[in-house]
Amino acid sequence: MHYRAPVRDIRFALEEIAAMDGLKATGAFPELSGELTQQVLDEAGKLANDVLAPLNRTGDVQGCRLEDGAVTTPEGFPRAYTKYVEGGWQGLQFSTEHGGMGLPKAMGCALMEMLQSANMSFGLGPMLTFGAIEALIAHGSRQLRELYLPRVMTGEWSATMNLTEPQAGSDVGALTTRAEPNGDGSWAISGQKIYITWGEHDCADNIVHLVLARTPGSPAGTKGISLFLVPKFIPDEEGEPGERNGVRAIGLEHKMGIHGSPTCTMEYDRAKGWLVGEETKGMACMFTMMNSARLNVGVQGVAIAERAYQQALEFAKERKQGRAPMTPGEPPHAIIEHPDVRRMLAIMKAKTEAARAICFHAAVEADYAVHHEDAEERAWSKRREDLLIPIAKAWSTDVGVEVASLGVQVHGGMGYVEETGAAQHYRDARIAPIYEGTNGIQAIDLVGRKLPMQGGKPVAELIEDFQETIEDLATSSNPDLNALADTFGPAVEAMDAATGWMLKAKAEDRLAGATAYLKLAGDVTGGWLLCLGALAAQRRLKHGEGDQEHARGRIALTRVYADSVLRAVPGLLGQVRLGADALFDPAAIAMLESA
Amino acid sequence: MHYRAPVRDIRFALEEIAAMDGLKATGAFPELSGELTQQVLDEAGKLANDVLAPLNRTGDVQGCRLEDGAVTTPEGFPRAYTKYVEGGWQGLQFSTEHGGMGLPKAMGCALMEMLQSANMSFGLGPMLTFGAIEALIAHGSRQLRELYLPRVMTGEWSATMNLTEPQAGSDVGALTTRAEPNGDGSWAISGQKIYITWGEHDCADNIVHLVLARTPGSPAGTKGISLFLVPKFIPDEEGEPGERNGVRAIGLEHKMGIHGSPTCTMEYDRAKGWLVGEETKGMACMFTMMNSARLNVGVQGVAIAERAYQQALEFAKERKQGRAPMTPGEPPHAIIEHPDVRRMLAIMKAKTEAARAICFHAAVEADYAVHHEDAEERAWSKRREDLLIPIAKAWSTDVGVEVASLGVQVHGGMGYVEETGAAQHYRDARIAPIYEGTNGIQAIDLVGRKLPMQGGKPVAELIEDFQETIEDLATSSNPDLNALADTFGPAVEAMDAATGWMLKAKAEDRLAGATAYLKLAGDVTGGWLLCLGALAAQRRLKHGEGDQEHARGRIALTRVYADSVLRAVPGLLGQVRLGADALFDPAAIAMLESA
Repeated sequence: MHYRAPVRDIRFALEEIAAMDGLKATGAFPELSGELTQQVLDEAGKLANDVLAPLNRTGDVQGCRLEDGAVTTPEGFPRAYTKYVEGGWQGLQFSTEHGGMGLPKAMGCALMEMLQSANMSFGLGPMLTFGAIEALIAHGSRQLRELYLPRVMTGEWSATMNLTEPQAGSDVGALTTRAEPNGDGSWAISGQKIYITWGEHDCADNIVHLVLARTPGSPAGTKGISLFLVPKFIPDEEGEPGERNGVRAIGLEHKMGIHGSPTCTMEYDRAKGWLVGEETKGMACMFTMMNSARLNVGVQGVAIAERAYQQALEFAKERKQGRAPMTPGEPPHAIIEHPDVRRMLAIMKAKTEAARAICFHAAVEADYAVHHEDAEERAWSKRREDLLIPIAKAWSTDVGVEVASLGVQVHGGMGYVEETGAAQHYRDARIAPIYEGTNGIQAIDLVGRKLPMQGGKPVAELIEDFQETIEDLATSSNPDLNALADTFGPAVEAMDAATGWMLKAKAEDRLAGATAYLKLAGDVTGGWLLCLGALAAQRRLKHGEGDQEHARGRIALTRVYADSVLRAVPGLLGQVRLGADALFDPAAIAMLESA
Repeated sequence: MHYRAPVRDIRFALEEIAAMDGLKATGAFPELSGELTQQVLDEAGKLANDVLAPLNRTGDVQGCRLEDGAVTTPEGFPRAYTKYVEGGWQGLQFSTEHGGMGLPKAMGCALMEMLQSANMSFGLGPMLTFGAIEALIAHGSRQLRELYLPRVMTGEWSATMNLTEPQAGSDVGALTTRAEPNGDGSWAISGQKIYITWGEHDCADNIVHLVLARTPGSPAGTKGISLFLVPKFIPDEEGEPGERNGVRAIGLEHKMGIHGSPTCTMEYDRAKGWLVGEETKGMACMFTMMNSARLNVGVQGVAIAERAYQQALEFAKERKQGRAPMTPGEPPHAIIEHPDVRRMLAIMKAKTEAARAICFHAAVEADYAVHHEDAEERAWSKRREDLLIPIAKAWSTDVGVEVASLGVQVHGGMGYVEETGAAQHYRDARIAPIYEGTNGIQAIDLVGRKLPMQGGKPVAELIEDFQETIEDLATSSNPDLNALADTFGPAVEAMDAATGWMLKAKAEDRLAGATAYLKLAGDVTGGWLLCLGALAAQRRLKHGEGDQEHARGRIALTRVYADSVLRAVPGLLGQVRLGADALFDPAAIAMLESA
């Protein structure tokens, strides 16, 4: 099955929904234009369609091998990586001052979506390197930046993030990897890290590990953690990869999916490292990257959903079976003509578009948060970005799994055999709700940190935006949009009620309802952004501008989402308000033990 | 991770919810008693826990091999199968007159649940043989029964169902396998069948294939299909496996899960077969088995959910991470102390119990439908069985997937690596919504055939039962049960409204909302049965009888289900009433093409 980068829908989400084109007015992106966007997306699409997508199944079937500390990636990966480097894609979203292409982060997200759709195992390598570039720019000393940034910016050298240890997963503060000063400004890092994505491979000349470790005498927990840069090969005087450092891969995980991505256990044995940022401020450095990293994982959810959707759509058009009730002509009819199959496809498409809109909205606001000329606007955008990040990560990755599962179902029996690829998407998708902070951790972040920020200001602003959109829908000349207002309204009321409850609830009750609240907020926010898209589509229809078919399709899609998802939102309040007693009182303890 | 057969919960569902003990009064099961039930379940549990469960991962890792038409199952499978045969389990639910143990079908379901929980790949073999025994008893000639039934009843000879062909999946009527008369009463069967579960293996002395095929001059579609028995080895005069027949496995599917179950492509080349039932009445014979087969697949959903739950519970008690808000003592605390993890476990448990109750209710009614002395009661039970079957199959298997996915999530990163086994459950579970009629086909069966039966009588009777339970809850002396009435009531109203809409809707609108209606009906029916369980638990508490802890747990569990699932039911009406226009008008066509 082919992948075709959905450039039209990506542009629609970036420009018509997330207002990326407004970034030009900030002065930070003087070249930005619809033409440039189209051009860049078309080129990125070619890389994804023609180079990466054909290797997706190869990567799944072959997986990675570890021999004597060296990892062999699947056939074709090294060559594809070289093409990725040659295209300059790694620097797309970084400023020209640092050697990047100077485009918005939102464009970086669009690129990321295509890479991950085409080949999630491959895309993980560049994704990790993105994060390391951000960390180096924000926290690296001038020396470190000069030595590493040029090579990492191109992707010639790839990068990793080393946080997790066997006893320190969600609780990063429990890590025990040690860093001892060598006396020459460098440090000796010792310890074991697990689940290190692209920790070792054969695609790049060098690998730059960013490693969390404890320095002597530092306090326990997260406050005693520092961030170190540990290269696989220590650069020599010319900056070329030199001496082999004391870090090596000692194991590869046998995972359910993303077989083409080497997930390594890394051993650091007095490996030479250099401090990034200040000593004991490692968590702060991590937080710099966290928004981008979580957003990019959210984008993976969108990406795998898009890929699964395309595959299911193609299959449903080709596979003939039975007589469809509304279809003229002799059976067998293509299964897309059966209402239940078409319903699955419509839900897949609607949720994918909603997730894409959430991620791109967050990305564009992240750009405004840095580049808007007005300080208050920057602060507004930063609040919006911070609020949306856990939703973008968790809601979109849950959508990725759900859509991939529907994709299997559309295929029937052929979805369960590995040959079609539908099963691979279902297996690959399942990692995204787990890594980069499980979706439960995202929900806790949302209700515990993001909701109460500034007395609930960010969420109040979001709900204000929703209400404005209800008004716009209600006053539209298109009755379909008026109907959307009627569906969206009660969903917004439910979100308002859920938010009010959360802001007043005891900590343990908040935690018990956190995941349900995040789902509710994602359902409503995704619906809101689709409604913005429907309003934009209506403007196109009114003025007869642009692709009229596409515009009509956007409104139809929003209707499906509204009836299927938004109407169900008020019913989620029960889960939100479940309360900790329902889980922790003595009878509740007994219920779990009833086996 | 261990599996421990949940005998206490299974008995609770069979006796306190589904009223299996009432079957004794029919006179058909004179031996039936609580003691016997406990004894049989304990023994079945030992087989599951000690013999089958330890082979579950072996089966996944090794899979099956096909060489020269012979299939080798994973290490230990043949010996475990011998133990299964020696225990006499295959005949558990068949009458002593046919050589069975003479217990209710509901007990057969309980056995089936344990087998599938312990080892779904293994359990599929016996499950298929169950179906063939039913077909032989109901439709086989005396000769066929005498020759085959004794060996199949013990499981010494296993059996298969051969329906699907590459062009004939959901549309069975499109099959082309031919049967030509040999002139001696036997037939020559030629054609290819795919997805044949346990089509070839090394566990039994002979394999009895039940094969759908067309006889010369028969009408097109399902009306021209006949059922044939085709043995792998033709029995000789002593009834021992004799001449090798012209049927062989020519391929094994490479599947996402159930690796230990050989899924074969079977080639029939003038294989000798004998008609089962009348010529061209093959579909009617299939329908005899369909209720049991679909119910047993529903039970697989329960089984995999139970297994995934047990594994997640054990992991959550052992894994320590972070500080839990309500837990005294030094961190790190077991992750079960974190509200979001405990919420996942509670949802897993509640949905598993609801699915179990639906399946066992259907099974017990299937027993009453045959054995009740009163003809009207038999008819009532038959209507209830028929109505519940598509719900039991589809809703329970969707629950299986959902619970297995939550099981992965509870494990965090360790859920995504294969070593823990959580990933295997997630992969194994995914087949059940597909085979034995996809869940979409079940939904179509529900709204297209079951709802309109006798002017909507079966569903009206079900809703009457719901209303009676609301009354019982509302008048209970326990305020927790009064609160359940308040939550259950609106869900029942929503089901009533959805049903009314469905009964009046155009065919294509019904089909567009079929899956949503089935989900709604399953949510409410599962909730009803849990409420029946809560009422039974309350009686125990009131009289101080039985396990008081367990009784309190059942009420707590029902509360979690009510707040999480029942409160969301009214919100599903939007999906039910989506309508075909939303999927088939020109704008809707455009929405799918927007990529």
